[in-house]
Amino acid sequence: MGNDQSNDAHSTRGAYVTSGAEFDRDTNYIEDRIVADPDAIRALAAPPTSKVGSLGYGLTTGAEAWPVEPGRYRLVAANACPWANRTVIVRRLLGLEPVISLGRPGPVHDVRSWTFDLEGQPQNVGDRDPVLGTERLQENYFARFPGYPRGITVPAIVDIPSGGVVTNDYPQITLDFSTQWREYHREGAPDLLPEALIDEMWPVIGRVFTEVNNGVYRCGFAGSQEAYDAAYARLWEALDWLEDRLATRRYLMGPTITEADVRLFTTLARFDPVYHGHFKTNRNRLVEMEHLWGYARDLFQTPGFGDTIDFVQIKRHYYVTHEDINPTRIVPAGPELGDWLDPHDRERLGGSPFGDGTPPGPVAEGEEILAGHNPLIPA
Amino acid sequence: MGNDQSNDAHSTRGAYVTSGAEFDRDTNYIEDRIVADPDAIRALAAPPTSKVGSLGYGLTTGAEAWPVEPGRYRLVAANACPWANRTVIVRRLLGLEPVISLGRPGPVHDVRSWTFDLEGQPQNVGDRDPVLGTERLQENYFARFPGYPRGITVPAIVDIPSGGVVTNDYPQITLDFSTQWREYHREGAPDLLPEALIDEMWPVIGRVFTEVNNGVYRCGFAGSQEAYDAAYARLWEALDWLEDRLATRRYLMGPTITEADVRLFTTLARFDPVYHGHFKTNRNRLVEMEHLWGYARDLFQTPGFGDTIDFVQIKRHYYVTHEDINPTRIVPAGPELGDWLDPHDRERLGGSPFGDGTPPGPVAEGEEILAGHNPLIPA
Repeated sequence: MGNDQSNDAHSTRGAYVTSGAEFDRDTNYIEDRIVADPDAIRALAAPPTSKVGSLGYGLTTGAEAWPVEPGRYRLVAANACPWANRTVIVRRLLGLEPVISLGRPGPVHDVRSWTFDLEGQPQNVGDRDPVLGTERLQENYFARFPGYPRGITVPAIVDIPSGGVVTNDYPQITLDFSTQWREYHREGAPDLLPEALIDEMWPVIGRVFTEVNNGVYRCGFAGSQEAYDAAYARLWEALDWLEDRLATRRYLMGPTITEADVRLFTTLARFDPVYHGHFKTNRNRLVEMEHLWGYARDLFQTPGFGDTIDFVQIKRHYYVTHEDINPTRIVPAGPELGDWLDPHDRERLGGSPFGDGTPPGPVAEGEEILAGHNPLIPA
Repeated sequence: MGNDQSNDAHSTRGAYVTSGAEFDRDTNYIEDRIVADPDAIRALAAPPTSKVGSLGYGLTTGAEAWPVEPGRYRLVAANACPWANRTVIVRRLLGLEPVISLGRPGPVHDVRSWTFDLEGQPQNVGDRDPVLGTERLQENYFARFPGYPRGITVPAIVDIPSGGVVTNDYPQITLDFSTQWREYHREGAPDLLPEALIDEMWPVIGRVFTEVNNGVYRCGFAGSQEAYDAAYARLWEALDWLEDRLATRRYLMGPTITEADVRLFTTLARFDPVYHGHFKTNRNRLVEMEHLWGYARDLFQTPGFGDTIDFVQIKRHYYVTHEDINPTRIVPAGPELGDWLDPHDRERLGGSPFGDGTPPGPVAEGEEILAGHNPLIPA
């Protein structure tokens, strides 16, 4: 996919399926970073090309380093989007709410931009983000790069004083929350990137990205039966691998929650409500995979995970936005979701979700998922 | 829906969704009948308007009576179509194969007609029906009514000598197989319309038709979110009623299989493979409804039912034909279907599938479902 097509994570281009072609995610982002020590980062070597972010490297060519500064930045993340959802979860697990504020576009965007028209969401006022003052996230991209030609994606971090987007490089954002904002982590914040596990974790994160996070899109946006059939086979090979892996490990890397779990969880939460039907990933439902489903429920019931999930906006986003695979834009009423709260019995595998740390406290005021949008918060 | 729109059961019109509108099945068919005693039928009163057929009445206005005659008629029924599937099941349960032959169009038709292009199906030769000699079922409609303006639907019964369609009045065809062709029923043929149950059965058949057989289409072809939401609620109210009814009854009307079971079964067989995703009937899958799923498996494993089901053609038909709800025409690879053969334990409810009768013998030669298209016939 060239630059004349929008990128997507989550972008707003209008056509998702290219007839006859395999879906190919554009990975051309604004790769600036917000870091604890800009000079030190500038001195490091450029990272290898990576779709999962990097640790221990410097800036990519042409990218800039911005200083960590409490209150200066606003994370813009739609509840609907799995890539944005990651950043909301990590921000919450680490307790960064007091230093990085959160702006939330509504679930349905047009071909130009995500918009701050979130009906009923307390923090948006008069269809404008109350801090940035913009109606469309595109305005914040343009404030940084006039006429910005690529997709207007979430998650994006905006520099509040200038109103310009600093970065939309979603795989790097959560890594930098863990490594660069450490001074502002809450007491008891978990270590999502445990040193001893990094070498084992990186291939897992890589496979989860290409085969699962992106694998569901490869199924849904396949432009031919052949591309779809191949995508479906790839996806299920990976899900079977995960099912097997999670039979004996409470979390992906073992006894505690890591970055890898955050990345897998946001796809699993959308699997039955959206991907199974809308993207035709329908060999079976998540609820039919004993270990993956127990694992997903375990995380869902852990503070910081399920309390960030808005099933209503998730369904509305996919079914209304992807008009080329759902031209009627009708949103299915099913499936029933109450069973996310069923006991999961994963404690039998041992471990402790936050290691030596503690769970995050309640969701920050004004950031709650609306009642009825999630089985944790009944209507 | 007026006559300027095609009818559908199963018709070949190109657009299924009318924006803003509820789906409304056209019920304007060729209502001729093939009967044991044409004069006697002509003397009876016209039936009340009914979408489920009638018993004990005569012809509708303008309709004609044709004589039962072995070898004279050919039933044209696509494996894909639930309305046609009924007629194939009843023909087989009653043992009418030697007297009424079977022609099979392929699963994918164009806007004009179902076609006899069934690749790999032994009875079609050179893309023509080997008995009728036609490439398109439309030719047989035109042989009867030149320029026939309504939908070219299956099931249709064709008069072989003239090549013209006698009837496509699907709710009446199976009733007449039971009542008018009695002289030619096999030994041990079941009574699908037991006299003592008719009064109780008719409302059941009616509710199954409006709420379930047609209810799934009302969900899938809804032209607005409101129409869909109402259709979904109606469908699930009916499925919950059936789930409850089948908790204590082995079959819909009690201890033996009746016409009502045939009519429900053809919808249930398509529920998880197609309706759940394609028509958004996704509160839950059939496999999650304990009694309905046990009942469906029980019937599937009964000779005359499962051996008429072609899951490959079923999926191909819906996903490729309904381009306005599946513009990519990609056919999902899932769900896995092997569990149709799992034990159902419905014998605990007592009863006997065929009452005083016997099961039908093997599928007639040349009429077998292709290997790999059904878990009864592995690839």
